[in-house]
Amino acid sequence: MNILVTGSSGFVGSHLCARLRQEHKVFYLARPHNPAQQPGADGNTFFFADNNIGALTLFLRQNQIEGIIHLASLYLQTHQEKDIPSLIQSNVYLGTAILEAASKAGVQWFINTGTIWQNFNAPDGSDRYCPVNLYAATKQAFMDLAKFYSETTDMRICTLKLCDTYGPNDTRRKIYALFEENARTGELLQMSAGEQKMDILHIDDVVEGFVHLAQMMHDGEKLQDEYVLSSGNQLSLRELAARYEQEHHVHLNIEWGARPYRPREVMTPYKGNLLPAWQPQKRE
Amino acid sequence: MNILVTGSSGFVGSHLCARLRQEHKVFYLARPHNPAQQPGADGNTFFFADNNIGALTLFLRQNQIEGIIHLASLYLQTHQEKDIPSLIQSNVYLGTAILEAASKAGVQWFINTGTIWQNFNAPDGSDRYCPVNLYAATKQAFMDLAKFYSETTDMRICTLKLCDTYGPNDTRRKIYALFEENARTGELLQMSAGEQKMDILHIDDVVEGFVHLAQMMHDGEKLQDEYVLSSGNQLSLRELAARYEQEHHVHLNIEWGARPYRPREVMTPYKGNLLPAWQPQKRE
Repeated sequence: MNILVTGSSGFVGSHLCARLRQEHKVFYLARPHNPAQQPGADGNTFFFADNNIGALTLFLRQNQIEGIIHLASLYLQTHQEKDIPSLIQSNVYLGTAILEAASKAGVQWFINTGTIWQNFNAPDGSDRYCPVNLYAATKQAFMDLAKFYSETTDMRICTLKLCDTYGPNDTRRKIYALFEENARTGELLQMSAGEQKMDILHIDDVVEGFVHLAQMMHDGEKLQDEYVLSSGNQLSLRELAARYEQEHHVHLNIEWGARPYRPREVMTPYKGNLLPAWQPQKRE
Repeated sequence: MNILVTGSSGFVGSHLCARLRQEHKVFYLARPHNPAQQPGADGNTFFFADNNIGALTLFLRQNQIEGIIHLASLYLQTHQEKDIPSLIQSNVYLGTAILEAASKAGVQWFINTGTIWQNFNAPDGSDRYCPVNLYAATKQAFMDLAKFYSETTDMRICTLKLCDTYGPNDTRRKIYALFEENARTGELLQMSAGEQKMDILHIDDVVEGFVHLAQMMHDGEKLQDEYVLSSGNQLSLRELAARYEQEHHVHLNIEWGARPYRPREVMTPYKGNLLPAWQPQKRE
């Protein structure tokens, strides 16, 4: 397949593209000002400036792009007022512009990336929308716009909602990075009471989820509008720390309860509809 | 009350502001490039340039704005690719920026304006979302962003979904304007088969709906997230034409069925939850 990936320079994107290139011809959409994006000399990267939807349409058509995997996103745990234009631009406008171009270029399918944070306090699997933060709200807003294209064109659109992720080359300061640093330095780490449940997937499992869904899209399987990639194994932060100590034969110097929970701390992650015929294989 | 209105130069906005000024102190938010907006010399108009959320916050606080009625919108029956940036900017970003400022300025309530076109083919009153067009999708997207603010602040937020409207000084080319012109000129008017049901409200009834909801917001009544303003009286386009002929003692020269229905023609408008304790009084 000829597949266009957005957000290919990010954590998920870089792993996914390496995997996709084993079987498919991969094209990239990048923003002109993204220094992390290294354009190939082979014309397989399209630099999307704000309003050139027509040029993107041409690029998609000329390269006979069959499907798009849309990972590009501005992630902010909490926002400040100065962030609002970029949040809307990156998480709402960009995807809409790509869908407009894709619908005109005859692209057959579009995989969107959501977050389980769109469903705060809905651990029962209901699809009730309640955003953890403004980032999650922009993800939901984009799904509304995508719905217009799935209703009015032949393009098939599906959203994969991701839980937390970990793996090599993750520059984000995530929980395993904290544990590793703590085991190494032994400095006191002050944390919340640690009763919040975590749902955290290895990047290889995330990548296989996208690859699997892309194949289902290609095969024309009947799909729902959204699926979740989840470890299926929710442990509390404390349990996660204990397991880390056991498996790595280290001691973590953590003071539990030294900090309050964050506002809108997710205590029980959303489960939703798991992607069918996919199972996580890796575990920290 | 001190009320800020956006979109005050539009059809609904101009009628609403005239009515609000009878009882309340009205402030205006306008875009710097809107020539229809005549700023008063009394400092009651705030010109919102793209990213000055801080300045808006100050304006809201200094003028002790209690509530906001958000009417500003870019309406497009069908869009072209060049319209996408403005649709997102006007219908998604602007409202989000206002909510951010409002939440910081202690504004107590916010009335948003939606459209029954967010619920295509859902005449059963279910709140299933399915947009008629991209305009309706941007309205839904904004409601999802508004949900973040209603969940995380004390501000009360409610959306009024409007059906079609008519009344004096309507510069939009709507159905009664077409009838009036046809009765005057007698020229042949080619229309669709005319079986689509219409839900059309006089502007005075729309205005009273907003005034009534503002009062309920002020009084702290328990409200749902959204209500519909509907005539409660759905007639087909043919029936509407026949009634117009009868009541105005004119003959309309219409060739029914000469044109196809539009793509995604709304045959049965969405009813939804009517605004409580409000009844339309006027009828064409």
